[in-house]
Amino acid sequence: MVSSGRRWLREQQHARWRLHCLKLQPLSPVPSDLEISRAQTPKAVDVLAKEIGLLADEIEVYGRSKAKVRLSLLERLKDQADGKYVLVAGITPTPLGEGKSTVTVGLVQALTAHLNINSFACLRQPSQGPTFGVKGGAAGGGYAQVIPMEEFNLHLTGDIHAITAANNLLAAAIDTRILHENTQTDKALYNRLVPLVNGVREFSSIQLARLKKLGINKTDPSTLTEEEISKFARLNIEPSTITWQRVLDTNDRFLRKMTIGQAHTEKGYSRQAQFDIAVASEIMAVLALTDSLTDMKERLGRMVVASDKNGQPVTAEDLGVTGALTVLMKDAIKPNLMQTLEGTPVFVHAGPFANIAHGNSSVLADKIALKLVGEEGFVVTEAGFGADIGMEKFFNIKCRASGLVPNVVVLVATVRALKMHGGGPSVTAGVPLKKEYTEENIQLVADGCCNLQKQIQIAQLFGVPVVVALNVFKTDSRAEIDLVCELAKRAGAFDAVPCYHWSVGGKGSVDLARAVREAAGQGSRFRFLYDLQLPIVEKIRTIAQAVYGAKDIELSPEAQSKIDRYTQQGFGNLPICMAKTHLSLSHQPDKKGVPRDFILPISDVRASIGAGFIYPLVGTMSTMPGLPTRPCFYDIDLDTETEQVKGLF
Amino acid sequence: MVSSGRRWLREQQHARWRLHCLKLQPLSPVPSDLEISRAQTPKAVDVLAKEIGLLADEIEVYGRSKAKVRLSLLERLKDQADGKYVLVAGITPTPLGEGKSTVTVGLVQALTAHLNINSFACLRQPSQGPTFGVKGGAAGGGYAQVIPMEEFNLHLTGDIHAITAANNLLAAAIDTRILHENTQTDKALYNRLVPLVNGVREFSSIQLARLKKLGINKTDPSTLTEEEISKFARLNIEPSTITWQRVLDTNDRFLRKMTIGQAHTEKGYSRQAQFDIAVASEIMAVLALTDSLTDMKERLGRMVVASDKNGQPVTAEDLGVTGALTVLMKDAIKPNLMQTLEGTPVFVHAGPFANIAHGNSSVLADKIALKLVGEEGFVVTEAGFGADIGMEKFFNIKCRASGLVPNVVVLVATVRALKMHGGGPSVTAGVPLKKEYTEENIQLVADGCCNLQKQIQIAQLFGVPVVVALNVFKTDSRAEIDLVCELAKRAGAFDAVPCYHWSVGGKGSVDLARAVREAAGQGSRFRFLYDLQLPIVEKIRTIAQAVYGAKDIELSPEAQSKIDRYTQQGFGNLPICMAKTHLSLSHQPDKKGVPRDFILPISDVRASIGAGFIYPLVGTMSTMPGLPTRPCFYDIDLDTETEQVKGLF
Repeated sequence: MVSSGRRWLREQQHARWRLHCLKLQPLSPVPSDLEISRAQTPKAVDVLAKEIGLLADEIEVYGRSKAKVRLSLLERLKDQADGKYVLVAGITPTPLGEGKSTVTVGLVQALTAHLNINSFACLRQPSQGPTFGVKGGAAGGGYAQVIPMEEFNLHLTGDIHAITAANNLLAAAIDTRILHENTQTDKALYNRLVPLVNGVREFSSIQLARLKKLGINKTDPSTLTEEEISKFARLNIEPSTITWQRVLDTNDRFLRKMTIGQAHTEKGYSRQAQFDIAVASEIMAVLALTDSLTDMKERLGRMVVASDKNGQPVTAEDLGVTGALTVLMKDAIKPNLMQTLEGTPVFVHAGPFANIAHGNSSVLADKIALKLVGEEGFVVTEAGFGADIGMEKFFNIKCRASGLVPNVVVLVATVRALKMHGGGPSVTAGVPLKKEYTEENIQLVADGCCNLQKQIQIAQLFGVPVVVALNVFKTDSRAEIDLVCELAKRAGAFDAVPCYHWSVGGKGSVDLARAVREAAGQGSRFRFLYDLQLPIVEKIRTIAQAVYGAKDIELSPEAQSKIDRYTQQGFGNLPICMAKTHLSLSHQPDKKGVPRDFILPISDVRASIGAGFIYPLVGTMSTMPGLPTRPCFYDIDLDTETEQVKGLF
Repeated sequence: MVSSGRRWLREQQHARWRLHCLKLQPLSPVPSDLEISRAQTPKAVDVLAKEIGLLADEIEVYGRSKAKVRLSLLERLKDQADGKYVLVAGITPTPLGEGKSTVTVGLVQALTAHLNINSFACLRQPSQGPTFGVKGGAAGGGYAQVIPMEEFNLHLTGDIHAITAANNLLAAAIDTRILHENTQTDKALYNRLVPLVNGVREFSSIQLARLKKLGINKTDPSTLTEEEISKFARLNIEPSTITWQRVLDTNDRFLRKMTIGQAHTEKGYSRQAQFDIAVASEIMAVLALTDSLTDMKERLGRMVVASDKNGQPVTAEDLGVTGALTVLMKDAIKPNLMQTLEGTPVFVHAGPFANIAHGNSSVLADKIALKLVGEEGFVVTEAGFGADIGMEKFFNIKCRASGLVPNVVVLVATVRALKMHGGGPSVTAGVPLKKEYTEENIQLVADGCCNLQKQIQIAQLFGVPVVVALNVFKTDSRAEIDLVCELAKRAGAFDAVPCYHWSVGGKGSVDLARAVREAAGQGSRFRFLYDLQLPIVEKIRTIAQAVYGAKDIELSPEAQSKIDRYTQQGFGNLPICMAKTHLSLSHQPDKKGVPRDFILPISDVRASIGAGFIYPLVGTMSTMPGLPTRPCFYDIDLDTETEQVKGLF
């Protein structure tokens, strides 16, 4: 009885969803993304949740079209086999982007709405900064979108705001602590840190943890020696070593470098500082890599914010703020459920920078989605930038953190980008495309396929089969399309298929969906590229040579000394997160195709200990975008009668 | 038929709610606020919404215990008579606060859960900064609370985050515009502002509005003269006049004064700037005073951020950002529905500063609540600080904006504060109370009642009946309580009653509820204190003399010149929002009781044109709090197993 009941339950879980898909009636020419999004009425999100097997108490609805999903589901479905795990990556892109998000969305629309296979797309949440600065949606586009796209692109459920709040509380705690230590005696500091409340002095639990770390095995505040009091009360942060920056989710270039603490109340303790865009916060990377509330709390506590005057790392935990950060992030950790234009499920969760961080959506969204789709289902997740960066980090950082094994890589290419790699004129945002890109040019395509071949080879380093998805534009000719598919297969791709999701929705990606399903049946022989036990320098060199095709690397003295310091501090066995341009396989954005014989210069090395990686800087990385002279907010408006957003993309 | 149908409908709307109240079982001694909050399971917010007559499509649920209410309800119920409108204000408080929020919550618990009268509490949303800095809840306390209190005190539904995002987008737009104007020719600026897209140049609607404002009646970008191009393209902002500051919802004292723009990419255009706490943003004041989406958009566009080089005001509209700000604020404008410990409805919406802004919750929450309770119901709303500030602004600013007429003022007093006004020793946060406050002392109480009498008289200036609510502490003696009530009535209060909501919930405020109901039956003869057409100086003088009891005012030269400028710019007929300490009726915090014969110094005058008031500064006002040496985040933690917040108050 029990075992047959269990089997029944398992079958229920494996069952194909009875999903009510939303019908599309694609128009030609294709209207704007916002018009397409608005023309479709999404299902109520609680209806969608029920369709995909979520229990009523496993979701927290936010308005009509968004819901957070509770992590308790992972416990309920822990015996359920995972679905197939598909990564969407891309070739080296033009500055216009090659449509990885639309391919991701088109693929799940095809799988679920057209092939009746359970599937989930897992996407990154975009930063609001660029949304109001330079046009560029992240919800997909055309007839392959997440809807409502304005909800996706604006506050969503407040996760980035929570990150901002947590990040800045920690920043304020650092400077204020330095000020208080500089202006108070040991005794005064101690009396304030461990105050007399109703005649009693008690350590808080976070303070007891600090005592333990310091090797002081005492619990009665009155028994500490003067030396112990000083050790306990002083973090002795060296201001020049502070790496923790404040953040805002706004493109505010005037905050790239500034001097803070200039009010007389700060008594002269001013210092140079900067704001980064919120998604560059290490807390975003933590959110993306954590797999539970307990793990997130530990990671937040481990984040290193500076060194003390003896060169020892100072952490969030040392500042006593771990609990508060966790409280601020307690809802952000739950993935956000939305839907595609065809009514299939999507998770939107986390959106770390793809250079100073790993640029992948969250481990938790992928894990939950893999349970929900069931063994025969598919989870399609996306990596930022080209495969040399996003995919490499997906494998070496994200899969290492999650323990998940990918089944297929979908590599997105466009004729436009291939022509650029073949020697076409430069492609610049805001400038009309040259005729090479709007007319057939077989030679440029043929020459540019070298980049596609190289990216296929990179995926193969990890033992995972590759399906090339050619994201077709209306100016692409049949001969160009056929050539790309032919060359891709010759380079070792399992398959290569043209996709038309942008103009017709999931129906246009059915061939891709079929190819992915077949590739997943092949089985992958996934392996990491490097062993974590290797020295930091060796890990960097491995990536540079095997992935980028560099001859070697060259470390600046600064980079070398940071590597020495991190190794000495015990952080040498973390994976590597390269901060490199995405516009070339090399460090030089204008070197297209497959650059050779270059030496990759490492100018500096930094560490995100809570997120769990070391990030070498290849050149300078801007972590705070600016607004252009005519920001796109000039076009954005709200119709106050209909409450409809206008001009967003 | 039709008319009887209408009557039936009206009766339905007037009907007493069939509200399932939550039972309380008060413990003694009273546990911590968080423990009390946690011991009660709130109703699902959609159940509560249905109970109070909201239609399913009028709410947007955010999780289990919070919902946003749509403004469309105001249209549906526009023929419904408003309920009674009750303001809770206080005497001049000690730094510990005298419990206005608990009285507000206790009063609605009494009205609805114990007298079966429809009622709504309208509260301000607290800033997260102090929540993690210095202890002090805003959800009420003891057995008169809004639950879940951690939801109330943390992100809520993201309104303050939306304000932060909107505020900082505008700030970034200002500095970036100055940089772009400084580094580009008229022609280059124009070509970027009105770019050629697919061979066509077009003005956006926001740019057409700007042309109209400049008196340029053209719509074809190619027809502007060189002079017109320059006028259109250059705002010519004078950096030293910028009054728009960046904000964060964090207590970050190092941002009180700083130099921004020091990166080489900003080409030397650095300037001094500051961050304020987010709730000090003018956008918060706009949110609190607006009565519709259309009105909010107009107010946001009107906000003056600086002067140009000719001394003319530069607005958000001039920067082209009105639409984007409105889009960012489109959900924040909807009031947030929560509930009290006894399951009665509460709106939490807006929380502007009570000194540089008007310190009252939102007009929209009050308006919607007045419709929902029906003609026989009560809406209890709260004003920050003492009655001399919060109540005066409620009447002269908020009621003027809303057109609503208050029926009753509840004036909250405590024996503790009265003793302080009677000459008791000073009361300081974090320092144990002196024995004068914990033992009976009739003389101090009798002497201190002068402050209560004065605050009663202030309310009477506006023609509204006053009920004094004595918020009883366990150390108050019967004789002290009786004396306060006796003296209050003698000073003209309609009634004066002791309240015990903190220790027993609504049951402890039933006498107050009865008194309020009776007072509301008296009818109020509400009048404003001053005519808007009076010169700014006269309006300030009227408040200083009639409300604070000052002999006269004294303007600094700076204040005088600002008044002249605002008058000249056409802002002379706005109401006045005094930025004065709440710790004394005068400008000196240590002058307790009823100070006399003082001259009120006005050091500076500023303007919030979008919110719609002029704010004179009486002394310096800190708009960015700091963290103490031991911030309360030391006690805050999350139990990662149960997901429960610990140590929050």
